[in-house]
Amino acid sequence: MSYTTKVLQKTGPEEPYQIAEIERRDPRADDVVIDIKAAGICHSDIHMIRNEWGSATYPLTVGHEIAGVVSAVGSDVTKFKVGDRVGVGCLVNSCGECEQCKAGAENNCLKGAIGTYNAEDVDGTITQGGYSQKITVNEGFVVTIPDALDFDVAAPLLCAGITTYSPLARWNVKPGQKVAVMGLGGLGHMGVQIAAAMGAEVTVLSRSLKKADAAKELGAVRTLATSDENFFEEHRGEFDLILNTISAPIDLGSYLNLLKPRGIMSVVGLTTEPLPLQIIDLIRGGRVLTGNNIGGIPETQEMLDFCAEHGIASVIEKVNVHEVDDAYDRVVAGDVKFRIVIDTETFDSAE
Amino acid sequence: MSYTTKVLQKTGPEEPYQIAEIERRDPRADDVVIDIKAAGICHSDIHMIRNEWGSATYPLTVGHEIAGVVSAVGSDVTKFKVGDRVGVGCLVNSCGECEQCKAGAENNCLKGAIGTYNAEDVDGTITQGGYSQKITVNEGFVVTIPDALDFDVAAPLLCAGITTYSPLARWNVKPGQKVAVMGLGGLGHMGVQIAAAMGAEVTVLSRSLKKADAAKELGAVRTLATSDENFFEEHRGEFDLILNTISAPIDLGSYLNLLKPRGIMSVVGLTTEPLPLQIIDLIRGGRVLTGNNIGGIPETQEMLDFCAEHGIASVIEKVNVHEVDDAYDRVVAGDVKFRIVIDTETFDSAE
Repeated sequence: MSYTTKVLQKTGPEEPYQIAEIERRDPRADDVVIDIKAAGICHSDIHMIRNEWGSATYPLTVGHEIAGVVSAVGSDVTKFKVGDRVGVGCLVNSCGECEQCKAGAENNCLKGAIGTYNAEDVDGTITQGGYSQKITVNEGFVVTIPDALDFDVAAPLLCAGITTYSPLARWNVKPGQKVAVMGLGGLGHMGVQIAAAMGAEVTVLSRSLKKADAAKELGAVRTLATSDENFFEEHRGEFDLILNTISAPIDLGSYLNLLKPRGIMSVVGLTTEPLPLQIIDLIRGGRVLTGNNIGGIPETQEMLDFCAEHGIASVIEKVNVHEVDDAYDRVVAGDVKFRIVIDTETFDSAE
Repeated sequence: MSYTTKVLQKTGPEEPYQIAEIERRDPRADDVVIDIKAAGICHSDIHMIRNEWGSATYPLTVGHEIAGVVSAVGSDVTKFKVGDRVGVGCLVNSCGECEQCKAGAENNCLKGAIGTYNAEDVDGTITQGGYSQKITVNEGFVVTIPDALDFDVAAPLLCAGITTYSPLARWNVKPGQKVAVMGLGGLGHMGVQIAAAMGAEVTVLSRSLKKADAAKELGAVRTLATSDENFFEEHRGEFDLILNTISAPIDLGSYLNLLKPRGIMSVVGLTTEPLPLQIIDLIRGGRVLTGNNIGGIPETQEMLDFCAEHGIASVIEKVNVHEVDDAYDRVVAGDVKFRIVIDTETFDSAE
C-alpha cells in the first residue's frame, strides 16, 4: 500500500536539512506516481519550514515546484501514462464539487484546497512536498510539461510562473499596454518575461538600477529606480498595470498614483504588516487594488503551454541535495539570479 | 456678454445662506443656458461650503445635481434646443483632447476636469453651482432628462445616481448575483434600486435594522445588521460585489472577507483617514478593492435612460430656498429619506 522514497527533511525550524526516507501511498485509482527530476525553491518554502508562519508540522518536507516523469498510474487514470513529462504545483487536491472547483479555480476551493506540503490530506496524513525522489498525486492536480521546457527551468513555473501569469492574464494585458513589475526576484523575473510575451511594454521598478541589464535581457524596456528623488512625480499616471511582487511594506498611495485612470495594481508579494490605504487613491481615477493567489489547474496548464510557445522559462541556478541550507540563506539575502532549483537526481549520488 | 441670476450664496464657512445675484456669461457658441427647476443637496456641497476640505473660495454657490429647461443656446449648439429638459452634474468642462476625454471619461480628464462649483473655469473665473435660477454650461456637459423623470427626482441622479450606477455597470452586475450595499443614504438608496434593476439580489448592510422596511421598498431582499455578533462569520464569502457608500472608517478586512473569490468591493464613500489593509485579504481569493468617482458624460446619459426605463428615481424631500441651512443640519445628522432637493422656483416667491 505504500513505498519508500528519499526526501530532504527538517525536524525543527532551526535544524539543518537531512536526507530521510518517508512512506508515500501507492497510487489510488486516480493517482499518478512521479519520479521527480527537479524541485524549485520558493521563498514560501523557507517561511514555512523555518516556522515563520507558525504553522509548521515536523518532520517536514517542503517544495511545491515539482517537475518529473510519470512512473506509475492508478487504474482509472486517463490523463497520463508512464513516461509522461509532468509537473505539480502548490496544490494536490480540493473538494472537486464546489462552484470554484467546477470552474477550474481549485486554488479558490470553497472548502479549502490541499497544499502540496504541511496540509492535512484527505486521508488525514500531512502532505510532504517535492524535495524528494518520488511523489504520489491525484491526476487532477498534475499538469503536462511541454517538451520544449527542460525539467529544471520548468519546475519554478509551477509556482512563480502561475503566480505571475494568472494576474497578467486575468487583467487582460495586451500589446501596447504599459506594465510595471515591482521587484526582480523569483516572481518578478517571470512577470517581466510573461508580460513582455503578451506584448506589453514592461518597466521594472526597483530601488536601484543594479538589475537593469538583467531586466533588459528578460524583456523589459527599462528599469526605473524608485529611490530617485522625483520618481513618483515624474511617472504619475503612466501605467496600465503594476504587478507588485515584493513582500516588503510599501507606500500604497505613491504606487497607486503611478497608474492611469482605471489602472490596476495586482499584488502577489505577501506583506504581513497592514499597509495604510487612503481611499481617495482608489476613488480618484477609479483605480483597482487586487491580489492573486497562484491559479487553477487549467490555467496552470495554459501558462506552461504559453511559456513553451513563447520560449519562456525560469532563469535558474542548480544546487544538489546537500546545498539547500546554503541556498536558503542566499534566497533570503536576495542573492539569486533568479530561482534556485534542487537537482533531485543527486539523492542517488548522495548515498 | 452676461446676465444676472439669483443664487444661494455663502460668504464664509459659518455664515448663513443668503440670496444674492451673480453674473453668469451669455452663451458662447457651444453653451446652453438652463432655467434650473431643481437642485439636489449632496453631502459634498456641505463639506465644500463649510470649508471642511480647506479649498473653498467665497462668496460661493454650490450644487452639482441640476435639472431644468434650456432657455437659450449658442450658435453652434446641435445637441439641444430651447425647451429641452436637461441636467448638469459634477462637471462643466474638461480638456476634450486627452485619451480619457475622447473615450467619454471626462471625469478622469488627464488635465483635470472642471467641477461645477469652486473650480477655475477656462476663462479664469470660479465656477458657481446649481443652487441658482439659471446656469450657463458647455453643451458637452449637459445631458437629456427623459420625460419619464420629474425634475426634482431626477436632479440627484446627476451625482448620487451616476456615482452608484457607474461601478455597478463597470463591474457588470447581472441577474443572479449577490450584491451588498453598505449604507442606505443618498448614495445607498440609489445603489439598491439600480443593482436590483440590473437583476441582482440586493442586501443592505447597516449597523441596525432601522431602515429595513425602507430598504425592502427600494428593492433589497433583506437588510443585515453588521452589529450582530456573528455577522462577519455567518456571511463570509457570500457576495459577488459590495458597494460601499459610507464615509466612516471601516475594518476593510472584515468586509473583504464577505466577498466570494474574485469578488469586488467598490468604494464610493470617501473616508479621509487611512484604513489599515492586510494584503492577504486581497491575495486570498484574488479579491478586488476599488473606488469610483462619478462617471463620464455618455455614461451619465446612459444612467438617466436606464433609470427612466426601469422606473427608478431618487426618493426626495423638497425644501424651499430659505430652508437650506436647516436641511444641511439634517443631512449631517443622517435624518433624511433619502435626498433633499431645493425647489429653485421658490427664488421668485422669495422676493
